[in-house]
Amino acid sequence: MFYAPDPGSKPLSGIGGNVATNAGGMSTVKYGATKDNVLGLKVVLADGREIKVGGRTLKQAFGYNLTQLFVGSEGTLGIVTEITVKLLPIPLGTPIMGVAFFDDMTKLAKAVTAIRISGVYPTMLEALDGNTMVALDHYEHTTYSDNSGAMLIFKIESSTDESMAVLKELLQKYEAQNVELTTDAPRQAALEQLRRDMLPAVFAGQNHIMEDMAMPLSKLAPMMDYIHDVGEQLGLKIYVAGHAGDGNVHPTIVWPKDEAMPEAVNQALRLMFEKTLAWEGTISGEHAVGMLKNQWNNAELGPDVDQLQHQIKALLDPMGILNPKRKIN
Amino acid sequence: MFYAPDPGSKPLSGIGGNVATNAGGMSTVKYGATKDNVLGLKVVLADGREIKVGGRTLKQAFGYNLTQLFVGSEGTLGIVTEITVKLLPIPLGTPIMGVAFFDDMTKLAKAVTAIRISGVYPTMLEALDGNTMVALDHYEHTTYSDNSGAMLIFKIESSTDESMAVLKELLQKYEAQNVELTTDAPRQAALEQLRRDMLPAVFAGQNHIMEDMAMPLSKLAPMMDYIHDVGEQLGLKIYVAGHAGDGNVHPTIVWPKDEAMPEAVNQALRLMFEKTLAWEGTISGEHAVGMLKNQWNNAELGPDVDQLQHQIKALLDPMGILNPKRKIN
Repeated sequence: MFYAPDPGSKPLSGIGGNVATNAGGMSTVKYGATKDNVLGLKVVLADGREIKVGGRTLKQAFGYNLTQLFVGSEGTLGIVTEITVKLLPIPLGTPIMGVAFFDDMTKLAKAVTAIRISGVYPTMLEALDGNTMVALDHYEHTTYSDNSGAMLIFKIESSTDESMAVLKELLQKYEAQNVELTTDAPRQAALEQLRRDMLPAVFAGQNHIMEDMAMPLSKLAPMMDYIHDVGEQLGLKIYVAGHAGDGNVHPTIVWPKDEAMPEAVNQALRLMFEKTLAWEGTISGEHAVGMLKNQWNNAELGPDVDQLQHQIKALLDPMGILNPKRKIN
Repeated sequence: MFYAPDPGSKPLSGIGGNVATNAGGMSTVKYGATKDNVLGLKVVLADGREIKVGGRTLKQAFGYNLTQLFVGSEGTLGIVTEITVKLLPIPLGTPIMGVAFFDDMTKLAKAVTAIRISGVYPTMLEALDGNTMVALDHYEHTTYSDNSGAMLIFKIESSTDESMAVLKELLQKYEAQNVELTTDAPRQAALEQLRRDMLPAVFAGQNHIMEDMAMPLSKLAPMMDYIHDVGEQLGLKIYVAGHAGDGNVHPTIVWPKDEAMPEAVNQALRLMFEKTLAWEGTISGEHAVGMLKNQWNNAELGPDVDQLQHQIKALLDPMGILNPKRKIN
């Protein structure tokens, strides 16, 4: 049995933080985020009482779902002291990982959308754009970016002849190049590490801000175009990578180490956020809200839901002592 | 693409009721209950405002999870007017259904537990005990109950040679008899119908009360023994059937059409409920609380959580106008 969520920040992140933020990750495309894998919690309330919500069963229809109220609440409603997670059986079959290259992120996004709605059920569908590939090549001493503009790293845990045939057909249809498929465990680990090295490669020696939008899958390809246009218009280099299979990408804007953040960065963020919301996406797919994004609550949730969130916060933390100024304030 | 949940009451139940109760069903063992398949809701609050919670994306880490607060709230926190559900790709491969027989429900439960934690990932694992089989034989003019005491109906949507080998090995290990496996669509439909006919077969011409416990899978086999003992002790005929793969069973107690409910029925329910809670199960796996079970809130949830539920109810429905006397009151 195994615990399915696999956050990109695995080396740094613990289960408590995963629950606080409702962390996503590499395998969310098949197994869901933290919220989909937590069954029960013990929580110390602001008044010191410890309560138990949810439980150990897969089904439960008693009471209101307070477990999911606490998952992702960023420590603002109570302090989680015990977590009961769902464990899944290790899938049968041979895991296959692969890498494929595309002319650009728009073409990649179309391929990802097609794979995602096919019966292939990949566990991982991770995308890296041209800028990210250049950074990665520099960091890893590889040459992936020489001939292509976007890279897809994918995994299918229980591959069959049929699922591989469908996958290959879709990759061909959407003009993937230099497709590599491997069942070799060390090579699979190397491909995963390549994805994990993406962040240090991009961040190396630069200031950065990394975003976290998720949109309906039908808007993934248009969003790739839009982000590209925003970068061009504002003269910014935007790196785009992330969990393409979830419609969840992390545009990252960098600027020189010793300089203040250019005003154009704020403009770019605002444009990307507004477009995401206009397309019925979210501006926090898996990184939660914290202190940086809580001024966007109203734009994302609307004033009535924002008010209701404050009422729930006031009910559970009337003195405002739990992780103040985060999440909704 | 398809909407995965498949409630046993499909011919009667609509999506609104499914969301209100967080309905489970036949395919929950693989795909989860309603809550796992709802992404967003529009809800009219008690004061007339319409709010939108959740959204269209698979990942979302903004705000508190109010979507899951409304799913399963039985109309007591707001009136759901629009539902956005997750659709899944239709799995590749050949669906295989099957039926297997066991000496008794305890042996069946052990086999189910082993299959459930293997890598086979069945979509359906439904159990019927000896009493239910007798009723079904009477209703269907079949003879399933002649030589066995428990019946398992199962489905694997994307079978492979490996998953079939594992399944057969486990069925053999746990002494399944007369195993039938079929890829024939009409026969598969007949097996599903057999499961669906279970309720009219048991209810036919009798008064009945059907329960809905779910326990951790490790307690499924002991629970089968316990329910059998309760029936013996109190001189009651208890029919046990349900979603064994979820640890969710529906013990049904019957008494003659024109008679009042014997006091022993209440005793049996109380004993079964108390044992379920002692074993960290829930006394409502998928049928929700309604008016009959709300006096058990305190026993299942504990006084602190019960109080918190009332506070949330009071916050969202201060005048108590939404579906009064259900769920928590």
